[in-house]
Amino acid sequence: MIAEYNPFHNGHRYQLATAKRLTGADVSIAVMSGNWVQRGEPALLDKWQRTELALQNGLDLVVELPFSMAVQPAHLFASGAVNMLSLLGCDTLAFGAEHPDMDFSTLAANRPASQTAHFKQFDETYPTLFNDYLQQQTGIDLRASNDILGFTYVAANQQLQSPMTILPIQRLASDHRSDALGDSSIASGAAIRKALTEAQWPAVAQVVPQQTLTALRTQQTVTWDAFWPLLRYQLLAQSIEQLQRIYQMSEGIEYRLKQAALEANDFQDFLRRAKTKRFTYSRLQRLCVYVLLQVTTAVPNTLTRYCRILGFSQTGQQYLNRIKKTLPVPVVTKVTDDWINGPYFLDYQAGLLRQMITGRDQDRLQHPVILR
Amino acid sequence: MIAEYNPFHNGHRYQLATAKRLTGADVSIAVMSGNWVQRGEPALLDKWQRTELALQNGLDLVVELPFSMAVQPAHLFASGAVNMLSLLGCDTLAFGAEHPDMDFSTLAANRPASQTAHFKQFDETYPTLFNDYLQQQTGIDLRASNDILGFTYVAANQQLQSPMTILPIQRLASDHRSDALGDSSIASGAAIRKALTEAQWPAVAQVVPQQTLTALRTQQTVTWDAFWPLLRYQLLAQSIEQLQRIYQMSEGIEYRLKQAALEANDFQDFLRRAKTKRFTYSRLQRLCVYVLLQVTTAVPNTLTRYCRILGFSQTGQQYLNRIKKTLPVPVVTKVTDDWINGPYFLDYQAGLLRQMITGRDQDRLQHPVILR
Repeated sequence: MIAEYNPFHNGHRYQLATAKRLTGADVSIAVMSGNWVQRGEPALLDKWQRTELALQNGLDLVVELPFSMAVQPAHLFASGAVNMLSLLGCDTLAFGAEHPDMDFSTLAANRPASQTAHFKQFDETYPTLFNDYLQQQTGIDLRASNDILGFTYVAANQQLQSPMTILPIQRLASDHRSDALGDSSIASGAAIRKALTEAQWPAVAQVVPQQTLTALRTQQTVTWDAFWPLLRYQLLAQSIEQLQRIYQMSEGIEYRLKQAALEANDFQDFLRRAKTKRFTYSRLQRLCVYVLLQVTTAVPNTLTRYCRILGFSQTGQQYLNRIKKTLPVPVVTKVTDDWINGPYFLDYQAGLLRQMITGRDQDRLQHPVILR
Repeated sequence: MIAEYNPFHNGHRYQLATAKRLTGADVSIAVMSGNWVQRGEPALLDKWQRTELALQNGLDLVVELPFSMAVQPAHLFASGAVNMLSLLGCDTLAFGAEHPDMDFSTLAANRPASQTAHFKQFDETYPTLFNDYLQQQTGIDLRASNDILGFTYVAANQQLQSPMTILPIQRLASDHRSDALGDSSIASGAAIRKALTEAQWPAVAQVVPQQTLTALRTQQTVTWDAFWPLLRYQLLAQSIEQLQRIYQMSEGIEYRLKQAALEANDFQDFLRRAKTKRFTYSRLQRLCVYVLLQVTTAVPNTLTRYCRILGFSQTGQQYLNRIKKTLPVPVVTKVTDDWINGPYFLDYQAGLLRQMITGRDQDRLQHPVILR
C-alpha cells in the first residue's frame, strides 16, 4: 500500500483488512510519507508515531517514502512509491478508490505523453487541464480524489518491467476531501484533521482506532501554524535572486510570496494572498516547504537510492531479512553521519525542522519501531 | 559625535553638553547605528525611538550609519562614521574616552599598516594581538574600551583630506563594559542593559533621562532572545555550502555554528558553545546577524552612498537645508521602492527583521523625527 496515515483512521484499517482478506497476503507493506506529506503540510504526528499506529493496526512493514518523492505532484509521488513497493518484492498494489471498477488501465494508457505539451492555458491549474484532457480522450470523468491517486499509481505501475497486480478497494467515505464527519465510523483524513482543529474529540473518537485517539490526545501535533514565523522570516530575509534558486520556484511566484509574507497575519491568510489561478494550494504549500528546507534546484533526486525502514512486525522482520541481501539499494535501519550528509540529507533536514518545534529527535537517535 | 545610544543615558547627555560648551558649536550632529549595533546585537529601542531621545536631549541632527558600516569591526565602523561626519561638514569630532589626554595621534600614526601582516598567532583574537602590537610600538597601553574606540576614530580621521579637530572628553563612568551600577548618576550602556535584563528599574531610573526611562518602560525592547528561533532555524536549514557564502564566514566556523545551533538551549548557550579563541563574542554575534539577514559576500559596500536622515531639531533642519545641495551623496528623508531594492536594501532588511518581532514599521512609513 501507499500511505500517509495522517492520521491512521478506521478507513485505513478497513482498507488493510480488505486487502489482506482478498489477497491472502503473506506480508503487508506500506510505503509512507515521512514528516511532510504530499500536499505540502507537516504530518500531524511524526513518522515514528504514525509507524507505530500502522503496525498496531496490522501492517507488517513500514518504509519511508523519501522526501524528494513524497513532497511532489501526484505523478512523482506515485512513481516513487510504486517503484519502492516493486523493489520490495510486492506482487499486489492495493489502494482505495471512490470507483474501484473504473477502467484505470485504459485511463492510464491514454494519459498525455508529455507533461506540458497539452497545457498551454494559463488561467487554470495543471490538475484541471489534465482531467479535462483525460475526459476528452476516454469519456471517463476522473474527478474523485482517490480515483485520481489510484490512476497515478496504475500509470506508474504500467511503467514497471514487471507490473504488480492492482487491487482497487471501494472507499467507504465518499471523498478524501470531504470535511464533514457523519454518523459513520469511517471518515476521510481531511474531515478528521478539520475536526481536530476544532477539538471535536467525540467525533474523532468515532472514526479512528483507540491508539490513534490516544496519540492525538497525548502527543504534540504539528501544523503549518508552528512553521509560519520561520517561513515568513525566510521569505522576507532572502532576496528575490536567492528565492529563485529554490526548487519549483517559477512564473514569478517569488514576488507574490514575498509580498504575501509581508502583509499576512497567519499562514492561511498568507496562502490566500499568494494564491493565483495557475497554482493549486498544494503546489503553493509544497513550494513553502522547499523554501523552509532551502531545497535548491540542484537537490531533488527522485531515483530510489535507499530503503529507510521505519518499523516492522515479526512477520515484516522475517520478510525483510529474507529479501534485504537481494535489494539493489541499501536498507537503512540506523542513519550515520555519512548518510545525514549524503543521500539522506533532505530527509534528515525535513525531520530536523520538525524537531525544532517538538524537540523530538527524528533520525539520529531513532531505531525502527518493532511490534512484538 | 558617533553614537549608538543603546540606550541614551546620562553619560551621553553629559558628553553632548560638554562638547557643546567646549566648542560653542552652531549645530550638533550624531551619526548613529540603526537597528543593529556594532557588537552584533539588536538595539533595545529602534532607530526612531533612539533618535527621538537624542533630539530631546540636545542633538540637532541624527543621521543613520548604514548597516554595512555599523555592524562591522571597530575600524570599519569608525571609518564609515568619520567619513559621514566629514561629509556633513563637521569641523570637530567629539568622543568620550577613559584617558582623554592619551596621545591618540601618535598611537594612530603607529598602527600596523596592513590588517593581517602582524597577526599570525592563531590562538588569540585580533583585538588582543592588535593591542599587544601597539603597546610594543608606542609604550602606551590601550586597553580601555572607549580609548580604543577613540583611537579608531582618530585613525580614520587622519585618513581624511581635511581631518576634523578631535575633542576627547573624559568619561565619568570608568569602563564602557563595566556592568555594575554604582551610586553615581552615570553608568555605562553595558551596565544599564544588564540592569534592564534584571528589571532593576530604580537603578536604571538613576542613570538615564526621564524620557529614556519612559521609553524603556512603555516600548517593546528587543534582544537576541527574540531572534534566536529564527537564527537557529537558518543555521540548521542551510547547508554548509550556503553558509559559506555568508559575509565573513571563515576558518570553518560554519561547522561550529551549525553544531552549536543543534545543541544549544538559548542564544547565550549557543554563543558559549560556538566560541573559540580566535573569535570574539562580538565577531560571532555579527556573523549571526549576517546569517539572519542572509548577507552574502557580494553585498557589503562600505562606501558612503547616501545620507539617511533620522531626525532633526529646527537648528538641525536649517543646517541640513543649507548643506544638502552641496553634498556629494543623496540625502534621504523618505525611502522609495527603488531605494529599498537598491542601495538601501540591507538597511531595509535589517529593519524588516526587527519589524517581524515588534510589528513596528521601520522604513516604508517613516519620516524623520522632528523636534519642535
